[in-house]
Amino acid sequence: MVKGYIFLNDAFVEAQSAALHVTDLAIQRGYGIFDFLKTVNGRALSLDDHLDRFYFSAQQMRLSVRPDKAELAAIITELMRKNDLPDSGIKITLTGGYSQDGFSIAEPNLIITQQPLVLTDHLTGLRLLSYEHSRQLPHVKTIDYLMPVWLQPLLAENSADDLLYHRNSYITECPRSNFFVVTAGGTLVTAADGVLKGVTRKKILDLAAPHFRIEERPVTLDEAYAAREAFISSTTKNVIAVTAIDGRPIGTGAEGEVTRWLWDAIWKIEQ
Amino acid sequence: MVKGYIFLNDAFVEAQSAALHVTDLAIQRGYGIFDFLKTVNGRALSLDDHLDRFYFSAQQMRLSVRPDKAELAAIITELMRKNDLPDSGIKITLTGGYSQDGFSIAEPNLIITQQPLVLTDHLTGLRLLSYEHSRQLPHVKTIDYLMPVWLQPLLAENSADDLLYHRNSYITECPRSNFFVVTAGGTLVTAADGVLKGVTRKKILDLAAPHFRIEERPVTLDEAYAAREAFISSTTKNVIAVTAIDGRPIGTGAEGEVTRWLWDAIWKIEQ
Repeated sequence: MVKGYIFLNDAFVEAQSAALHVTDLAIQRGYGIFDFLKTVNGRALSLDDHLDRFYFSAQQMRLSVRPDKAELAAIITELMRKNDLPDSGIKITLTGGYSQDGFSIAEPNLIITQQPLVLTDHLTGLRLLSYEHSRQLPHVKTIDYLMPVWLQPLLAENSADDLLYHRNSYITECPRSNFFVVTAGGTLVTAADGVLKGVTRKKILDLAAPHFRIEERPVTLDEAYAAREAFISSTTKNVIAVTAIDGRPIGTGAEGEVTRWLWDAIWKIEQ
Repeated sequence: MVKGYIFLNDAFVEAQSAALHVTDLAIQRGYGIFDFLKTVNGRALSLDDHLDRFYFSAQQMRLSVRPDKAELAAIITELMRKNDLPDSGIKITLTGGYSQDGFSIAEPNLIITQQPLVLTDHLTGLRLLSYEHSRQLPHVKTIDYLMPVWLQPLLAENSADDLLYHRNSYITECPRSNFFVVTAGGTLVTAADGVLKGVTRKKILDLAAPHFRIEERPVTLDEAYAAREAFISSTTKNVIAVTAIDGRPIGTGAEGEVTRWLWDAIWKIEQ
């Protein structure tokens, strides 16, 4: 399954041979960060935003990045040239490195992988299951996905597609995407705190600003149940309508107009 | 720093060559568990308890372990023979494996490492800093140490040696050890819920049972500040007196009698 090249620290290596020694702090202590961007027709989308967030996450986690932003962009361009995958996902991971004592941060390991990305058709109809949880350090894109990986069977048991995290009934985000509602009054609302600031989230707020009233504030579960529309956003998913939460239909139970409009608007700027 | 042999999945390999491909779910999603035991004079202490907990953690995290308990014990014995380190720490790690989609659990990778362990002299005088946090899945020994690794500078800023986790002022545990108090009335108290059930914790409760009144229940921060004694316990640390919490001296501000008695009792059974 792993083909082509991976960039590892300072060199492009055959993908199947890209390995970290077991003393790495990701394996020892689950300590690392990443970012993920997509390429469409050989163009890396929102590269600047993703690299900015990657350096922000690294700095927050006290991890040094050897290449500077321009060098990292050049490495990504070279990786794209070598792998020749026009439509792809590129993941940049930075771990805590080979720790002498198995606990202290060392010289980080940098891994850049590229995989074919089948750009999904226009998906509609995601069913979410609310779950009381906050990501640790939610403003940072860490590799900590212990809970959502562990909770996969719970989703299956509840015929749900993804989790909707909340704390005391205040919704924050999904494990890998941001969450929005359109209220009965037509206002677009999404949480501002306790969430990862998604690159697609930012695009949506920019695109919507001239057309909709926008509020960045906590949304309660009850408000979400009663919303006219709800949707999630992420780099891989673009915008997907949420048609049910905890088995309750949202709005008409089908994709809403605002969601559809945003999907189209993002699709257009990405082609 | 890495010498001797490491057991990796199905073979003993030279320690420096023990590596995991970057698609492993520990590197991708921080998903894995471990256990840690010590050897003294070539004897693996509480091996049964550690293996039982290892299989429990694996089962909780939906990770399969290929060798059964007897086979795993034999592998550890053989590793000890090959490395010839009479006083050591042995870490058994199990990760989510090489995930095809970077999210779903795959065939786990099993890593067993052994390192020299300098058995600490009788330490006294640990200073703790209270911090509102719960480990994710606290009853499971996962590799998730995102918060305590990240919080190392906070300890330095506060002249503290370790964190003391609490939730709404109810103390649970330290990041890598259990926490006990001896009340003014002489009762030994430690939390029973929201904590990892330490192997040394169990030894302490067994040793203390004939001599002290014991309560397994939540302890508040205020109760800990006012305690006659406080101490922590772990496989590597044995028992260490906590002489200050949040800069406030506990009891006399020096090691207490019960703590000393327990340290001696454990030391004796471990030689």
